Amino acid sequence: MTEKAAGSAARAVLQQCLHARLQVKPPDEQSEAQWVQIDRGMVIYICFFKGATEDILPKMVSSLLNLRLCESGSGRLVSVSELPGSLLVVPQATLGGRAKGKAVQYHGNIGKEDGLRLYGGFVALCEKELLAAAAAARGNAEAGGGAGVTVKSGTYGNRQVLKLDTNGPYTHLMEF
Amino acid sequence: MTEKAAGSAARAVLQQCLHARLQVKPPDEQSEAQWVQIDRGMVIYICFFKGATEDILPKMVSSLLNLRLCESGSGRLVSVSELPGSLLVVPQATLGGRAKGKAVQYHGNIGKEDGLRLYGGFVALCEKELLAAAAAARGNAEAGGGAGVTVKSGTYGNRQVLKLDTNGPYTHLMEF
Repeated sequence: MTEKAAGSAARAVLQQCLHARLQVKPPDEQSEAQWVQIDRGMVIYICFFKGATEDILPKMVSSLLNLRLCESGSGRLVSVSELPGSLLVVPQATLGGRAKGKAVQYHGNIGKEDGLRLYGGFVALCEKELLAAAAAARGNAEAGGGAGVTVKSGTYGNRQVLKLDTNGPYTHLMEF
Repeated sequence: MTEKAAGSAARAVLQQCLHARLQVKPPDEQSEAQWVQIDRGMVIYICFFKGATEDILPKMVSSLLNLRLCESGSGRLVSVSELPGSLLVVPQATLGGRAKGKAVQYHGNIGKEDGLRLYGGFVALCEKELLAAAAAARGNAEAGGGAGVTVKSGTYGNRQVLKLDTNGPYTHLMEF
């Protein structure tokens, strides 16, 4: 019913947001829950499959940051780099699920250690590329500047408690 | 980069929610925006591809309503029918997008009239199946009753202004 695309190394679901807030540390006896948040930008839910390596990260990040999925002030579609908008990266192993009867199995997913390493690399590269684009935009008055643009990310392996506010999530699926 | 699964007739993305609110009529000069909302349950973003017919709807609805994706009070995974939870069905043609360079194309999507008809049939069948399950649950004290369970849906072709509150979206992809 659900299929892993043949040879697919990673799957991303993208949603546009006005504001998004993600828990990165659950509350415990000592402290309250900790959250990260972004304003206008894109939420990237990401899952890596078995066999994925760091080689795919540059192409993934370049594609995701340059796809024209965001509505600019004038209604034109621009990339999140061009907007410029922020990113919230959410580790989402459930995206690798395949239905087997009423149950969902995750046998195609990458192991936890490799997944954590790839997720960390993905977030770091998003940060590098998006902040470079934002710095370029700050030097360009026409683009409205890239001040306030940020990359936030969830804690790998945690429950991803998320609150999302959109002007249309405009949900897209990307396979790599 | 993104692929339409060979022979796929429909694509659904599923997210669990504590509360979700969707605009079904934008504001105009005469009236304020109109919204629908659900509490605990599942958001189904749905897109039909060229060649999809009503024949697929019963299997789709049965699968989606019976997949064990929802965390019950005891932490056990149950279906949205068993929870019992509500459904918010969001038409989301963007799910059919394929990247071509920096642009995204939607050539594989079903035409608007056929899409509207399938979407209407899908929502009606979700309503019938979920409400039948909820009525059965009301007769079963152990299940906590199905009171308050509802199916809400967006307006096909509109911008889907969505606000989502989760305890983990637990995002899944299903192809049919």
